[in-house]
Amino acid sequence: MEEINFNKISIIGLGLMGGSLGLAIKKNIKNAEVIGISRKKENVKYAKKIGAIDDGTNNLKEGVKNSDLVVIATLVDAIVPTFKKIAPHLKNSCIVTDIGSTKLGIVQEINNFLTSHSSYRLSFIGGHPMCGREVSGIKFAKDDLYENAVYILTPYNNSSREISKLKSFIYQIKAKPYILSPHFHDYCVAGISHLPYIVAVSLAKTIDNLKDKNKVLKFAAGGFRDTTRIAASSPQMWKDICFHNKKEILKFLSLFVEEISHTKNLIEEEKWDSIEKKFASAKKVREKLNRR
Amino acid sequence: MEEINFNKISIIGLGLMGGSLGLAIKKNIKNAEVIGISRKKENVKYAKKIGAIDDGTNNLKEGVKNSDLVVIATLVDAIVPTFKKIAPHLKNSCIVTDIGSTKLGIVQEINNFLTSHSSYRLSFIGGHPMCGREVSGIKFAKDDLYENAVYILTPYNNSSREISKLKSFIYQIKAKPYILSPHFHDYCVAGISHLPYIVAVSLAKTIDNLKDKNKVLKFAAGGFRDTTRIAASSPQMWKDICFHNKKEILKFLSLFVEEISHTKNLIEEEKWDSIEKKFASAKKVREKLNRR
Repeated sequence: MEEINFNKISIIGLGLMGGSLGLAIKKNIKNAEVIGISRKKENVKYAKKIGAIDDGTNNLKEGVKNSDLVVIATLVDAIVPTFKKIAPHLKNSCIVTDIGSTKLGIVQEINNFLTSHSSYRLSFIGGHPMCGREVSGIKFAKDDLYENAVYILTPYNNSSREISKLKSFIYQIKAKPYILSPHFHDYCVAGISHLPYIVAVSLAKTIDNLKDKNKVLKFAAGGFRDTTRIAASSPQMWKDICFHNKKEILKFLSLFVEEISHTKNLIEEEKWDSIEKKFASAKKVREKLNRR
Repeated sequence: MEEINFNKISIIGLGLMGGSLGLAIKKNIKNAEVIGISRKKENVKYAKKIGAIDDGTNNLKEGVKNSDLVVIATLVDAIVPTFKKIAPHLKNSCIVTDIGSTKLGIVQEINNFLTSHSSYRLSFIGGHPMCGREVSGIKFAKDDLYENAVYILTPYNNSSREISKLKSFIYQIKAKPYILSPHFHDYCVAGISHLPYIVAVSLAKTIDNLKDKNKVLKFAAGGFRDTTRIAASSPQMWKDICFHNKKEILKFLSLFVEEISHTKNLIEEEKWDSIEKKFASAKKVREKLNRR
C-alpha cells in the first residue's frame, strides 16, 4: 500500500470517536497537524490538553481551511448539513469523510449536492469505523480505540487514487479498511449492530416494565449484563440511526421477531429435540466469531 | 454469622461449576475434605490434579459416605434422580444442595420424596449460584468464580439452623447468599437469565438464517459480540432449563415480543420522540446495573 500522508487533518466533532481519532493520528502519523472543531469550547480545550489535537476552534470555516482531510465525526443527523456548510471553504482536492453509522442516505445526499455544485474540487467518501462503545464523550477517548477495528469505506463516484489515500490513512491509524457499497453497508449494520441495540433496549425495557423490577434486577448477572450492555449508548445517536436506516432496521426486526416467535412456539409445543438443535446451531455461529 | 464448618463435602458433577466450587472450598476453608464424584474418570483425575478435590470416585454411594454436605452440580435433568439415588446412603443430618438454574420443580419433587421417605434424616436446600459462564467443563474452572457472586438459596421446610449452616458455607467461599422462594426464583431468573439467553440465540440465528451470513458476520463488532455471548453456552443445559421453567420463560418471551414489537411500530410510524424516550429509559435501567 502506497503511503501518502495528509499533512493537515481537521476533525469536526470532538466526542468519543473524534477525540480517539485525534489521539490515534497524533500517536501514529508523524508530522500530521490535527485541527479539532467543536461547538463546545471545553471539548476543544480538553482535546488539546490530552494531545488529541494540535489546535482547535469552534469556527467551521476557519477549522477546515487548507486541510487535506476533513473527518466529520458528528451525530448522523448533522453530517450532511455540516458538509454543505464547509464545502465552499475547502481547498482543492480535499478529501472529506464521515464516521456515521448509516451510509446510503448520507452518500446519496452529498453526491447530489456535489453534482449540483460542480465547481467544488473535492471528494466525499463515506466511512464507518466499527469501534463505537456504549459510552460517549471525549472523556472516554483512547488512543487505541481504532486499533484492529474494522473500518468500512463506502466510496461512490470516487477515483481509485482518492480511495487509496484514505485507505492508507486508515492503515496508518492501525484500523482495517473494507470497501462496501453504501447499500450493503446499511443492510449489514442493520443486522449486526442496529438490531442488537434494539434487542438490548427491549430486554432492558421488558424488565423495567415489571412491577417488581427492582427486586428482579437485584439478581441480574453476567448474561443480562452482557446482553444489555449496548442499551447504555446514546439515545439521541440511536434515534438518528433508526431514522436514517429505517427500512433495513424494520426488515431485520421482522426477521428477528419471526425467529424468536419460532423458538417460543417450539417451547410451547415441547419440541425439545428441535430446541436443542437450534441452540446448538446458535452456539456454532457464536463460536465462529471467537475464533477470529 | 455463626461459622459452622462442614468437615466433609461431596461434589457430584465435576464441570465448570463443580470444579470451581472444589477450588473455592480448598482455597477458603481450612480442614474441609472435598470428595469429587463424576462418571468421567478423566474429570476426577483432572480435578485432583488442579487441587479441586482431595479424592474422587465414579461411585455415588461411596462418594457421599459420611459427608456433612453434598452439592449436586449436575445438569438440571439429573438433579432429582441423583438425589433419590444418594438419599439412602447419606449420614444423619447431612445437608444436600444443588446448583440448578431452576428451582420450583426440583424443590417440590425432592420434598415430596422426603415426605414419603420419612425415615431419612437429611435435608435438602435448593441453591443457585449466579456465576455460570458461556463455557463449560472443568478445564475452565477457576478458584474465584464464586467470589462476589449472588448465590440464591430456596429453602422449603428447612430449619433455620440448616439454612444458617449453608449460608455460612456460602460466605466462606466469598459468595453472597440470598433467600428466595422457589417460585420467585424461577420467575426472576426467567427474566434476567433465561430470556436473555433465548434472545441471544434468536439474534445469532437471525443472522445465521441469511443467505449471505458469512459476508455479514465479517463485520460483527462489539455490540453483536456482547449481545450474543451467552448463545455459546451448552445447548443441552439450556434445553433442560426451558423444560423445567417453561411456564415462566413463555411468560417473559411474550412480554419481550410485545415490547420489541412496540418499538418496531414506533419506528414504522416514525414517532421519533417516543423512540428517543424509550431508548433513554433503557439506558437508565442499564446504567443502574453498572453502579452496583
